[in-house]
Amino acid sequence: MKRQWVLPAAIAGLCIGVAAQVLAQPNPNQLIANRKGAMALQGKYFGPILAMAQGRAPFDAKVVQRNADYLAMLSQMPWEDFQPQSLGLQNTRAKEDIAKDEAKFKARAQDLQSEIQKLQAAARKGDEGAVKAAAPAVAKVCNSCHEDFSTMNFRFKL
Amino acid sequence: MKRQWVLPAAIAGLCIGVAAQVLAQPNPNQLIANRKGAMALQGKYFGPILAMAQGRAPFDAKVVQRNADYLAMLSQMPWEDFQPQSLGLQNTRAKEDIAKDEAKFKARAQDLQSEIQKLQAAARKGDEGAVKAAAPAVAKVCNSCHEDFSTMNFRFKL
Repeated sequence: MKRQWVLPAAIAGLCIGVAAQVLAQPNPNQLIANRKGAMALQGKYFGPILAMAQGRAPFDAKVVQRNADYLAMLSQMPWEDFQPQSLGLQNTRAKEDIAKDEAKFKARAQDLQSEIQKLQAAARKGDEGAVKAAAPAVAKVCNSCHEDFSTMNFRFKL
Repeated sequence: MKRQWVLPAAIAGLCIGVAAQVLAQPNPNQLIANRKGAMALQGKYFGPILAMAQGRAPFDAKVVQRNADYLAMLSQMPWEDFQPQSLGLQNTRAKEDIAKDEAKFKARAQDLQSEIQKLQAAARKGDEGAVKAAAPAVAKVCNSCHEDFSTMNFRFKL
């Protein structure tokens, strides 16, 4: 390579590298839509269980079991989409604290998964008492994570 | 009841009845958020499978299996949220045709579930060839339903 081309070639190479990095990063709006989707669906399927647990709706073992199975899967989905480039933007209420205290955020996600596992086990046994004990424990984890990591003022009433 | 109270009481009763009906109807914005959520997540977990099927990404049997299991569940979720009061609004691209031709819409939903079942069966067997055949069939159903029932111009490239 001629000497006068070395620097331009190096710069071009660097630019391609940076562009590839940018392209490899998922679109923040897609990440936001995905995680909002998982959150909305967790609400859709958990809301009725909590209502039954709190006596606001008649207990329906079949619905509880289906919803708990859905929740076990849905509660795996949102966390990887809270990537730093998608926090603190106008169309999200997710705080930048998620990136600042990743360990705490991950621990909350695991708490949720573990409380949902208990709910699912109770639901599969059709154990109404155990479901009614497990549901508020799930709601508490939702609330405490929203408290720390979201500017959304939604909380489950306990 | 005194005669002069009969009409006002009847009107009040009617109003309470109407209000109860309105309250019983799910909030259109919540329905829209829920179904958009299910659609976004279907895209999140189907996109990589189609990319692998089309040779745009290396085949990863484990990811395919997990994603296909997710899709089997996610593809149960959106349909009940396309209620008439939530169609043709500003924050949705779902057409009112969904309510006008409910039978066709439901058939499309069932087509999707059935193609995803085939994909899931192939994924569980780790049968790369069968996955690569099943994925475009899923994409075709997505595209044809979007064609008829959505103003969104997103289509999978086949």
